[in-house]
Amino acid sequence: MERATSVLTDPYSLSEQARAAVYHNIFTRRDVRSQFLPDQVSDLVLSRVLMAAHHAPSVGFMQPWNFLVIRSKAVRQRVHSAFLLARAEEATRFESGKEQQYRRLKLEGILDAPVNICVTCDHERAGPAVLGRTHNSTTDVYSTVCAVQNLWLAARAEGLGVGWVSIFKPTALQQILGIPATISPIAYLCVGFVSYFLEKPELELAGWRSRTPLEKLVFFEQWGQDHCEWSDGIVQRIRHIQEREGQGVMAE
Amino acid sequence: MERATSVLTDPYSLSEQARAAVYHNIFTRRDVRSQFLPDQVSDLVLSRVLMAAHHAPSVGFMQPWNFLVIRSKAVRQRVHSAFLLARAEEATRFESGKEQQYRRLKLEGILDAPVNICVTCDHERAGPAVLGRTHNSTTDVYSTVCAVQNLWLAARAEGLGVGWVSIFKPTALQQILGIPATISPIAYLCVGFVSYFLEKPELELAGWRSRTPLEKLVFFEQWGQDHCEWSDGIVQRIRHIQEREGQGVMAE
Repeated sequence: MERATSVLTDPYSLSEQARAAVYHNIFTRRDVRSQFLPDQVSDLVLSRVLMAAHHAPSVGFMQPWNFLVIRSKAVRQRVHSAFLLARAEEATRFESGKEQQYRRLKLEGILDAPVNICVTCDHERAGPAVLGRTHNSTTDVYSTVCAVQNLWLAARAEGLGVGWVSIFKPTALQQILGIPATISPIAYLCVGFVSYFLEKPELELAGWRSRTPLEKLVFFEQWGQDHCEWSDGIVQRIRHIQEREGQGVMAE
Repeated sequence: MERATSVLTDPYSLSEQARAAVYHNIFTRRDVRSQFLPDQVSDLVLSRVLMAAHHAPSVGFMQPWNFLVIRSKAVRQRVHSAFLLARAEEATRFESGKEQQYRRLKLEGILDAPVNICVTCDHERAGPAVLGRTHNSTTDVYSTVCAVQNLWLAARAEGLGVGWVSIFKPTALQQILGIPATISPIAYLCVGFVSYFLEKPELELAGWRSRTPLEKLVFFEQWGQDHCEWSDGIVQRIRHIQEREGQGVMAE
C-alpha cells in the first residue's frame, strides 16, 4: 500500500537507512505509563495508526479485530476504577518486599493519555470454518495481538507512546464498554504523545526484572539444544550485538 | 538500543522519511508461502531478526519466549508430513466449492524456506506471580505473539519473507521438536529470501476472502457506536487512505 520509493533500493528490499529506521523503531518502542502529555492526537495520525493495525497478518485472512477508540473522560474514569480494584487484588500475590515495590510502580496512563483504544477479537468473524484455525482455535487471538503490535510500532514512529494495561477482572472491560460476551477484549491501550521515551523498559529500570541474554533463549534443530554444527556464528553475533548495546544492530 | 541518529529529527520522533519506512514495511509485509528462494540467510541477519523479536513487549517483563531455529532438512520433512496430515483434515471442513479451492492453495513453505523458526511460550518463565498476568493468564501468549510480529517486520526490512504455518495437530510440533508438554509452540515460521513480495495478501488475491473496510471495524466510546461527535474526521481520513491505496498513508 505504501510506495515510499525513496526509501527503497528495489521493490523488495529496504535501503540500509530505511532498515535502520525499522530497527530503531522496534528497539525504542516502550510500554509507556508515566510520560504521557495531554496533547490531542490528530485524526490523521490516529487513522494511520489504525490502518497499520488493520494490515496485520490474520489466520485465514479473518481480520477478527475491532478497535474501540475512547476519548471520553467519564468512560476512562470507569476503566480506571476497574484497574484500581484489580491492582489491589494483584498486589497481594507478591511477597512483602516485592509487594511494596509493586505498590510503588505506576502501571497505567488511562487518565493521563488523551486516547484509549480497546482492541477486541470476534471469534465468529469468518464463520465456523477458518483456514488455519481448525487445530488451534486461539489463532484468531494471535492475529489480534499482531494488530496490536503493528499499532504499537506505527504509534512509536509517530512519536506516540502506548501502554498496554492488562490488570482488569476478566469481564470488567466488557461491562464498562458494552462489549458482548462473545467478543474478547484482548488489549486495552493508553495512547498519547510523550515527554520522552525511556532508554530501557520501565520494569527493567525499576529493578523489577532483568532482560534475559538472548542466546539463552535460542535453541537449534531440537528443543534444549543450545548449539549445533552451524550455531556458533549466530551465538557470537547475538553476543556481539548485546555487548554493543546502544550502538545499534546495523553498526556492522 | 539502536542509535541511527541520521533517521531521527530528535530523540523521540522519527523523521518523515523514517516514518515512511516504518509504514512501508508494515504495509508490504506478507505471509509468504510460494516465493521462497533457497539462498542461505546469514548469521548476522538471523541474529538481528531474533534480537528484534526479543525486544517485544512482555507482560511483567516476563520474556516468555524461546526461538528454536531449524535448518535440518530431515526435521523440516517431519514437520511437513505433520502439516500434510492436518491439511487433509482441515480440507474436509469446507463445503465442496470452497474445499476444491482450499486444496489448490499453497499454504506453507516448510521445505522451500531454508530456515524455519518455532517460537514457543514458557508459561512458568517468571514463577507463579507475574505483574499484569493475574487476571488473564493468556497474556504471556500475547507477549509471545508480539515477539513473532517484531520478528516478521524485522525480517521484511531485511528482504526476508516469513510464513506462519498453523495447520498442525496440537501436539505434533512438540513431538517432532522435543518441546516439553508445559511449553506451548505458538508460531511455526518459514523464513527465507523471496523472489518477490505479493502486492496484496495471497488469500485476498486468490479470492478466498476480501479485506474489510477499516471504518466498519472502528467504534467510538462504546461498543457498536460507529460514530460520535468527534468521529467524522477519523472516518473520513480512513476512507481517504483506503481510496488512495497504493499512494501511501504518508502522502498527505
